[in-house]
Amino acid sequence: MEERVGDAVTKLDRLRDALRAFTAARNWQSFHSPKNLAMALSVEAAELLEVFQWMTEADSRNLDPAARAAASEEIADVLLYLILLSDALDIDAIAAAERKMVANAQKYPVDKARGTSAKYTRL
Amino acid sequence: MEERVGDAVTKLDRLRDALRAFTAARNWQSFHSPKNLAMALSVEAAELLEVFQWMTEADSRNLDPAARAAASEEIADVLLYLILLSDALDIDAIAAAERKMVANAQKYPVDKARGTSAKYTRL
Amino acid sequence: MEERVGDAVTKLDRLRDALRAFTAARNWQSFHSPKNLAMALSVEAAELLEVFQWMTEADSRNLDPAARAAASEEIADVLLYLILLSDALDIDAIAAAERKMVANAQKYPVDKARGTSAKYTRL
Amino acid sequence: MEERVGDAVTKLDRLRDALRAFTAARNWQSFHSPKNLAMALSVEAAELLEVFQWMTEADSRNLDPAARAAASEEIADVLLYLILLSDALDIDAIAAAERKMVANAQKYPVDKARGTSAKYTRL
Repeated sequence: MEERVGDAVTKLDRLRDALRAFTAARNWQSFHSPKNLAMALSVEAAELLEVFQWMTEADSRNLDPAARAAASEEIADVLLYLILLSDALDIDAIAAAERKMVANAQKYPVDKARGTSAKYTRL
Repeated sequence: MEERVGDAVTKLDRLRDALRAFTAARNWQSFHSPKNLAMALSVEAAELLEVFQWMTEADSRNLDPAARAAASEEIADVLLYLILLSDALDIDAIAAAERKMVANAQKYPVDKARGTSAKYTRL
Repeated sequence: MEERVGDAVTKLDRLRDALRAFTAARNWQSFHSPKNLAMALSVEAAELLEVFQWMTEADSRNLDPAARAAASEEIADVLLYLILLSDALDIDAIAAAERKMVANAQKYPVDKARGTSAKYTRL
Repeated sequence: MEERVGDAVTKLDRLRDALRAFTAARNWQSFHSPKNLAMALSVEAAELLEVFQWMTEADSRNLDPAARAAASEEIADVLLYLILLSDALDIDAIAAAERKMVANAQKYPVDKARGTSAKYTRL
């Protein structure tokens, strides 16, 4: 998940390096199989989902401070596990996302997708 | 989810901007409530989980090319929805993750956490 | 997950027995660790979630036939993995649910919970 | 999700009826759109997954009492939301599962599926 601008080490690089050091200091490498990290990522995504569970969509666009703080913390957890998993698999998440954006532009042409979510579904 | 080194616009910034343009061109803003984006993120996290579902942990550390490509694509989807959701909530995911790293260091002191996952559980 | 009325073997019993035979015939017991079954259950729950992902709540109350058929199939998958997991752990899901109903009645007293989802949240 | 043996009202029927009364007494019907119930089901499935998150598969086959109690409670929650969602959609979960078993037997013939999880994957 490296992201370099010129030769600068970026904030994502620093998070990855901090996570490596954090894991090594606690000797947690054996727990961090990609299988387990994918489970942890999924659990954190569900904790993020839980914040919005009983809200209307309108309310989710106007969070009160407590809900906003909870969302922020769960977003952090999802990002941290995404960095850990990408690092464990040696996958560059940014580059993968850039490729996916290109694929999505072809999959959902503007003239056909405009204003309908039908293209999203696989039903 | 901005990340700047000096004045440089970073790759995360560019992904966010590309997602904004992609969404606006298709008039999909109405679908992208935080509630819906959190659902989509959770669905993508589960598709990532599915890659590892029947593997042993050992196998998950040595993916064949097809599984690796599938994992890469799902990691991309998770990252894209995380950027969309962070942007919709105006939350800086990188800064939130940096704060969480500080909190985690206090929550799991090295001398108590070393080599045990017990600290992880909430049982 | 047994459910007996008098001495009658129930439909849940029969599903459990059919799943045992199905698994044994394919020699899939080694894949069916509780850890893996919990992953599979979570993946199926997300596929069920996906059906409703871009719908409004109002639309989710009035599914078209295709969405209804998709929901039905994913509900089936969730139930089958729930039976498999309960059987693997020798947990009686019905009895556990009955106990949880008693606990919920105490946790959410009618006079305090009426018409608010506040009790649901943990924020 | 009805299940009748002769004319007997079964335990699943009774759970469904208890959930209807529980919801009505708290005036929670407005929160219980199928979209929201599918979210809640997914969140509970993740809480169940969390129990097994850092365990080996072998350990997941031999739970200590605390983990077993946690798994039992989360299984209960998943079942309760599955009953609520099936009732909201007027889908008979047992019948849907019976149909799925027939479909699975055709999809995974014994002679081809024996001892391999390859049939499971969609890679």
